[in-house]
Amino acid sequence: MITVPKLTLEDVKVLLAAAESEARAIGVDVDIAVVDDGGQLLGFYRMDKAKITGIQIAIDKAFTAAGARKATHEYAAMASPGASAFGIHVSNGGRFMIFGGGVPIFVAGQIVGGVGISSGSSEQDRAVAEAAVDALLCQLRKSVTAQPPTP
Amino acid sequence: MITVPKLTLEDVKVLLAAAESEARAIGVDVDIAVVDDGGQLLGFYRMDKAKITGIQIAIDKAFTAAGARKATHEYAAMASPGASAFGIHVSNGGRFMIFGGGVPIFVAGQIVGGVGISSGSSEQDRAVAEAAVDALLCQLRKSVTAQPPTP
Amino acid sequence: MITVPKLTLEDVKVLLAAAESEARAIGVDVDIAVVDDGGQLLGFYRMDKAKITGIQIAIDKAFTAAGARKATHEYAAMASPGASAFGIHVSNGGRFMIFGGGVPIFVAGQIVGGVGISSGSSEQDRAVAEAAVDALLCQLRKSVTAQPPTP
Amino acid sequence: MITVPKLTLEDVKVLLAAAESEARAIGVDVDIAVVDDGGQLLGFYRMDKAKITGIQIAIDKAFTAAGARKATHEYAAMASPGASAFGIHVSNGGRFMIFGGGVPIFVAGQIVGGVGISSGSSEQDRAVAEAAVDALLCQLRKSVTAQPPTP
Repeated sequence: MITVPKLTLEDVKVLLAAAESEARAIGVDVDIAVVDDGGQLLGFYRMDKAKITGIQIAIDKAFTAAGARKATHEYAAMASPGASAFGIHVSNGGRFMIFGGGVPIFVAGQIVGGVGISSGSSEQDRAVAEAAVDALLCQLRKSVTAQPPTP
Repeated sequence: MITVPKLTLEDVKVLLAAAESEARAIGVDVDIAVVDDGGQLLGFYRMDKAKITGIQIAIDKAFTAAGARKATHEYAAMASPGASAFGIHVSNGGRFMIFGGGVPIFVAGQIVGGVGISSGSSEQDRAVAEAAVDALLCQLRKSVTAQPPTP
Repeated sequence: MITVPKLTLEDVKVLLAAAESEARAIGVDVDIAVVDDGGQLLGFYRMDKAKITGIQIAIDKAFTAAGARKATHEYAAMASPGASAFGIHVSNGGRFMIFGGGVPIFVAGQIVGGVGISSGSSEQDRAVAEAAVDALLCQLRKSVTAQPPTP
Repeated sequence: MITVPKLTLEDVKVLLAAAESEARAIGVDVDIAVVDDGGQLLGFYRMDKAKITGIQIAIDKAFTAAGARKATHEYAAMASPGASAFGIHVSNGGRFMIFGGGVPIFVAGQIVGGVGISSGSSEQDRAVAEAAVDALLCQLRKSVTAQPPTP
């Protein structure tokens, strides 16, 4: 047996809030999904003008990023016609997303989940997802630092 | 054309927070889903010990409550063997939930969405869902009252 | 090879209009679906207050009635626990509906399609479906009668 | 809470009739689907020679146009191999349509639904969908104009 880090709902709230905040900052309403290391949904926000079609796409980007442990935009090249993973987008019942907006979350080198964003351009979605993960990692570092030094 | 009320993300946050708070008060971790009047996901929280199987159940209870405009516990009797709607539980791709935990949200007599809770007993799930809806309606009444009187 | 009668869009409009009219007469807004003898969708109306969950149920009741060539309410008894066809409601991907509201359409003893109604009680849905089929059959008899006698 | 416009069955009939009329004018039988702003079916006509495979395609084009708030032909370029949204066509359970024939319906700047047409060429399907939306918007303008002036 081993021990692995695991996201809590409090971590998920940090991710959702940071994603919403970044989306507002760049002026786009998005669907925001957070999943655990098994790709299972932990949290979701739909901003007021986010797309209905983006609900499943956001969830599936988070699923792909967490499950494949790779950002979805990294698959754009390798899953194109002629490339080595072409066809992977129909796997997992069509849930494997191969364009930007899904970002894995690693803590201490361990995968703990993924964030998926949809409704904006691939670049916007990716920027929002990365901002969310950055905010969580920043928060976690602060928690560690805030612990009183052992005497 | 007609005009109808619609939930915003701020309303959804009230629902999620109230559900989480009620679940803590009664000592159970739950999956919490909020959908719009068309049954499409607006918000989701998984509490730390909520069930993985409850993710889809919570979403589908919210879908059923909003889509059928009836609390899911009301279907328990009418969808039992021998009753008039027996068999409805397999409809909508098996998403039609017929036990407690899904509650529709009506504002000014109009359906605007649903809350679905899963992981506890049917009674616990229902209590949490009802507390969430009550909190939103209370909040909306305050907003109305808080408006300055017309001079 | 044989020749079979087949519904046209004009026939479908008669069915949709008659169902809508009967639903208004009995005071319930319903989802109305018409399918052909292969169970494939020919026409659909959602009345303003009809249920979202009723969309698929109406389509599936019409599918069941046309495909099994039997009204869906006739399955209530035979598909109950302990009866001979118990379990049939999960067949066809859960599309096999076993409560009232789906009615087959026979013309000259041949199946030509089905009407499926949802949102009301099983009894209301069945009454609306039967009124729609009656209206079409009445219309077809008139067309025949209206032909000038051969001299 | 916010307030939004919503299509009625009377609006849907205008869309269905206008689409059928335009399809006849250009000499093609089509499947015609209308959905609401959440992508849920509101109305459907299958013309006599329309394709069986077009039933789901028409419904899914309408779903895509309403849900993504963009005409489906606009996705042809951006979802091609090498483009930024390549792979989006498998999302939403394979319902995301990326060729012409799905058109969103905006009223007063708000999305209220979508029309989806299938069976013809992409260009024909798009022309029919656009004619349907134009007819509705024209009708709505007339309704507004027809209101008696306030004295």
